[in-house]
Amino acid sequence: MPKNFSYEELMTFSKKIFLKIGCSESDASIAARSLLSADLRGVDSHGVARLSGYVHLWEVKRVNPVPDIKVIYETVSTAVVDGDAGLGLVVAPFAMQIAIKKATHAGSGWVSVKNSNHFGIAGIHAMMALEHDMIGIAFTNGSPLVAPTFSVDRMLGTNPIAVAVPAGKEPAFVADMATTTAANGKLEILQRQKAAAPLGWIQDKNGEASCDPNELKLGGALLPLGGDREHGSHKGYALGSIVDIFSGILSGANFGPWVPPFPAYLPMPDYMPGKGIGHFFGAMRIDAFRPAEEFKKDMDTWIRVFHNAKPIKGAERVLVPGDVEREIEEERMRKGIPLMGSVVEDLEKLAVRLGVEFKKLAIGRRQ
Amino acid sequence: MPKNFSYEELMTFSKKIFLKIGCSESDASIAARSLLSADLRGVDSHGVARLSGYVHLWEVKRVNPVPDIKVIYETVSTAVVDGDAGLGLVVAPFAMQIAIKKATHAGSGWVSVKNSNHFGIAGIHAMMALEHDMIGIAFTNGSPLVAPTFSVDRMLGTNPIAVAVPAGKEPAFVADMATTTAANGKLEILQRQKAAAPLGWIQDKNGEASCDPNELKLGGALLPLGGDREHGSHKGYALGSIVDIFSGILSGANFGPWVPPFPAYLPMPDYMPGKGIGHFFGAMRIDAFRPAEEFKKDMDTWIRVFHNAKPIKGAERVLVPGDVEREIEEERMRKGIPLMGSVVEDLEKLAVRLGVEFKKLAIGRRQ
Repeated sequence: MPKNFSYEELMTFSKKIFLKIGCSESDASIAARSLLSADLRGVDSHGVARLSGYVHLWEVKRVNPVPDIKVIYETVSTAVVDGDAGLGLVVAPFAMQIAIKKATHAGSGWVSVKNSNHFGIAGIHAMMALEHDMIGIAFTNGSPLVAPTFSVDRMLGTNPIAVAVPAGKEPAFVADMATTTAANGKLEILQRQKAAAPLGWIQDKNGEASCDPNELKLGGALLPLGGDREHGSHKGYALGSIVDIFSGILSGANFGPWVPPFPAYLPMPDYMPGKGIGHFFGAMRIDAFRPAEEFKKDMDTWIRVFHNAKPIKGAERVLVPGDVEREIEEERMRKGIPLMGSVVEDLEKLAVRLGVEFKKLAIGRRQ
Repeated sequence: MPKNFSYEELMTFSKKIFLKIGCSESDASIAARSLLSADLRGVDSHGVARLSGYVHLWEVKRVNPVPDIKVIYETVSTAVVDGDAGLGLVVAPFAMQIAIKKATHAGSGWVSVKNSNHFGIAGIHAMMALEHDMIGIAFTNGSPLVAPTFSVDRMLGTNPIAVAVPAGKEPAFVADMATTTAANGKLEILQRQKAAAPLGWIQDKNGEASCDPNELKLGGALLPLGGDREHGSHKGYALGSIVDIFSGILSGANFGPWVPPFPAYLPMPDYMPGKGIGHFFGAMRIDAFRPAEEFKKDMDTWIRVFHNAKPIKGAERVLVPGDVEREIEEERMRKGIPLMGSVVEDLEKLAVRLGVEFKKLAIGRRQ
């Protein structure tokens, strides 16, 4: 059974870990907040479950805890940021702030980032735009786990797209999705359950359709959104490619099959056309198009008419992108964040290794 | 058997039709070029097969042949265009030019359009950016044919996304896709063949999965890319929603279930929150990020490594987005554009009705 931890407890612990690897006070806070937003929003694979992974990257000197993150090129509405091998969790909010600042002055801001590392969940960075009455956009490339349509080889990461749009009285529209049929985290759940995956999620090492959730470890690949050609996998492949090009090639980061892996124990690619991994951020000021109040009123109308669509048999309601994550966040802020036993063990080991107290946190919170 | 017509013949004919409904010389040329690009690139459903449809829209006064298309609001990098109920085939190139001009000065340009009509294929508008060494983006919303995940009701159009990226020695990357599993045109082919559609393309009027390609006429709906929840249809739904919001709500056009239909004989929606249909265009100057030559060299590398990926059994090669359409275009420029008998008949009737010569064109081109 998972144990529940409060958001604050996990924040404090994560921040201490980031301080231990040498991050500044401010960067440690930002990194912990980026990381925990995944746990809060129900993307358990991208939260504290990965904390030790980030530490491993620091241990093999792939993460620079004191990066000199800077704009290396810019125009009125665009910029390229060099993340100086910093934590993506810190580089991403820096770059998104640049996009927002540019949008404030020029109507829109677009920032491509090189020399970064994994940035957690894309949605939280896109959502930074909301309080400024802007639309926020966040992409990142990642190491190759996905086979394009008709390809045996893995050529793309799960390359997520996040778009956050402010509304008025209704909560914001927040889409945040891998450009694959299913995220890797869902396969991990099936692995634990020793259950089969639906057709269209994965292929084996020869490119044949498979239902074995372990295929990725055996040389298989995730499939682009659509699953197969007949169901439009060439579209998911195109979307993942766009994310890769905007994040990797516009910035001068690595791209395609040459994006370095997250697990520190995996070898680096034999060829590296750029620096680190790449992200892409965008911000568009609503009132650079029309009065924000008018827009937000229309967004409320949009959200309500979609919520009021007639649900199919067996479904309770029609959802708007962001509903599920927001409801999980509300619940977890109240009841705490449930962590699997294996994740708790991993954090306990990490605590011992870096000399940070953790044990106490787990006491008295069993549910 | 389809008959082949040369590109020039169909251009001349289409232009004459647009002149007959009152378009200026220049607008008639632009409209014909936009329309024919669909036939050239193999998107037969969006080309001259729709010419009489555009004329019908003019006949019911939904298309203004002499629109005063103008920028009604702008910032350094953004603009809103009012299409004055003009042909989308003309409004779209106008708006894309604004995006390109803004990108020239500000690094990027973003234009949301209201009060327009159907613009043909999205890809051709995005591709206008290529010769300027820019990335081009084009979206449009459309009348509701698509049911969101868990919805019985149709709430979104097939809302395409097109992104064109320049390369160096390799041909450009051009993605152009409806945000549904399959385009409506593919269902029409199955209807003619009296064949079944694959599961995941459509649902019936009660929201149940169906393989009957006629469901759309019976109150059913197309499904978002992904097909069902288990295969990620909530992602296709989110993408279609983003296109709708950027095209419809940012501009003040109609959106969601209230976008007017293309066929002139269908009733207009009972409620109209905005004006006409909406589009969204973007242009990003490559050298607003990094030197264009460096970028294009990396794009060549990207395209080559994807082309060289190992193909699965039964597939000849791995394609890059845009390959298929470009190859069809090369062939059709040489051999002509094949038109189905029903399309030829429709054009012949149109020719008679508007007093434009067509018959001669079909002679001597039978294959």
